[in-house]
Amino acid sequence: MSKFFSEKYSSLTPYTPGEQPKDAQYIKLNTNESPFPPTEKAVSCAAEAAERLNLYPDPECFLLTSRLADILGVDREEVLLTNGSDEILNFAFMAYCDDAHPAAFADITYGFYKVFAELNRVPYEIIPLSDDLTIRSDDYIGINKTIFIANPNAPTGIALTLSEIERIVESNPDNIVVIDEAYVDFGGESAVPLIKKYDNLLVTQTFSKSRSMAGARLGFGVGCKELIRDLNTVKYSTNPYNINMMTMAAGIGILEDEETVRERCKTICENRTYTADALTTLGFECIPSSTNFIFARHPHLDGETVYLKLKEAGILVRHFTTERIKDYNRITIGTREQMEALVTAMIGILGELLYK
Amino acid sequence: MSKFFSEKYSSLTPYTPGEQPKDAQYIKLNTNESPFPPTEKAVSCAAEAAERLNLYPDPECFLLTSRLADILGVDREEVLLTNGSDEILNFAFMAYCDDAHPAAFADITYGFYKVFAELNRVPYEIIPLSDDLTIRSDDYIGINKTIFIANPNAPTGIALTLSEIERIVESNPDNIVVIDEAYVDFGGESAVPLIKKYDNLLVTQTFSKSRSMAGARLGFGVGCKELIRDLNTVKYSTNPYNINMMTMAAGIGILEDEETVRERCKTICENRTYTADALTTLGFECIPSSTNFIFARHPHLDGETVYLKLKEAGILVRHFTTERIKDYNRITIGTREQMEALVTAMIGILGELLYK
Repeated sequence: MSKFFSEKYSSLTPYTPGEQPKDAQYIKLNTNESPFPPTEKAVSCAAEAAERLNLYPDPECFLLTSRLADILGVDREEVLLTNGSDEILNFAFMAYCDDAHPAAFADITYGFYKVFAELNRVPYEIIPLSDDLTIRSDDYIGINKTIFIANPNAPTGIALTLSEIERIVESNPDNIVVIDEAYVDFGGESAVPLIKKYDNLLVTQTFSKSRSMAGARLGFGVGCKELIRDLNTVKYSTNPYNINMMTMAAGIGILEDEETVRERCKTICENRTYTADALTTLGFECIPSSTNFIFARHPHLDGETVYLKLKEAGILVRHFTTERIKDYNRITIGTREQMEALVTAMIGILGELLYK
Repeated sequence: MSKFFSEKYSSLTPYTPGEQPKDAQYIKLNTNESPFPPTEKAVSCAAEAAERLNLYPDPECFLLTSRLADILGVDREEVLLTNGSDEILNFAFMAYCDDAHPAAFADITYGFYKVFAELNRVPYEIIPLSDDLTIRSDDYIGINKTIFIANPNAPTGIALTLSEIERIVESNPDNIVVIDEAYVDFGGESAVPLIKKYDNLLVTQTFSKSRSMAGARLGFGVGCKELIRDLNTVKYSTNPYNINMMTMAAGIGILEDEETVRERCKTICENRTYTADALTTLGFECIPSSTNFIFARHPHLDGETVYLKLKEAGILVRHFTTERIKDYNRITIGTREQMEALVTAMIGILGELLYK
């Protein structure tokens, strides 16, 4: 830190992205990426846009926003595209949290909520998950705070039902409730239709997971027109050209392949079942997942050891050091071949550590 | 504005990007874009990256940062890539401005400085340009504020000399001085070499203008390692994956074409001379420009009228309504053909308005 760095940020602890080692080729099951490349249509749209890069992108993202709104069944003015869903989440912290509107989120959830709260220097309440790592919706009823819920939650993979979400939104009419649906396409119920009924609901999603576009940085928020207007005020005061031209084009392209996207999600869910069954057979406890990852622990193995042994075997998974979940690892669901490699490696590790 | 929007932003006036009309095809001389498409290398690198979009981009931007540092003659740890130079400017406002370190910038300069100051709710002093629209470097000597200077300045096009910049940096050792060199490649002297000598200097640049990549959103800051560490703390607390994979690849590609970029800058400067000479012949006062645009007014014509008449003629230029500069228009330098079209249109407008 330089002597010039503003005191307000001196204690800021940044977010730690999943590791991207350059020392070797790994089977990457650590950042919840899709194992499927973007569709041909998405690639060709992006490549074509690359030829016009000398021009600024449309700051309104008019075409992409219109197409996306159609697919979501909402109006264009109810959608805001952002540079990854991290950006829309940060915009929500900026727009809707302050001393009068503290943030509230779970202890075990997407790690960026806490970073955004600190970055924006807003007070926040951390609401612990129950012992079985589920979000207790009762804890969020009428709490009069700006609520951030990942649904399904990460890294647990557990989803709340839509009626539980609605109960939370309905009981906090004076505060915004943000439902972060990064993983919704793998088994959750989306709250998007509820934005027509509640003016305090903001739903965020991403093109990173089910739409195979993590590398493009494209996320969005859906809410009533007034909320989207607020968030546009923040956007145009932060980074008006937040979506580059190639990402915008790739987004338009992938939206023409909705059926392929759905099929791929189905495949991921099948591979998830295979993996959970195999790991369970090997003695792991796998939390039932509604996402493209599994959160698993073994009663006789240390989580960090499993992580390190898998890395030695050329497979990266994500391990968190947080006390409550340090026994677990978060394993992204990839192709069937990748998951078979994981299971094989795990058999080797168990053999080495438990049965020698 | 919704009833939920935080009071802290209720008076925020966002930045207004240059217009992007969809009603017709214009000769676009309003947003200082390059008339040259990105090079083949940049396009092919981007297209190739599009095929791997399912993976997250490298949050460190290791390869691009290394290549850029080599070209700039600095170390990799002295460079931070951002989502356009707007992002590095905002990071600087976040990191280096607060109640103890108010911002200071000119009245007529890049309009976003004021927006960033308001967004970050930091006090700021506005320092008027002199009557001839130049920045008086004396006004910035030892002022003990975090200084933001666009050099060359926009929309005037006027550059300070490197020795004037150094005097400002040297005289404010307890504050950061940010030199925004978005237009430096068209005739300014870069302050980048000074970062080795001064720990309070941050230089920002962009790939948008000379490198034909406005659509890709790529900017960067150069400063001593401690400053880049500060700014990385802000980045990793805001948007760790701020540069998407295609933009990163296009950036690596364009850096292999430095000679083409230099030749194109030379062509732009030649077209600028042609345009300034022609407009001067037509009675316009053109401020001597070190950028890829000309700031011009006509003693007998209202600035807005010129703007509107040009638009009718299918040519977009940028007009600002700010009192001090409302007589002027900012005209981007495009191809020779585009500038000839501008001059022809201007002759028609003058004939219609002044000599009929």
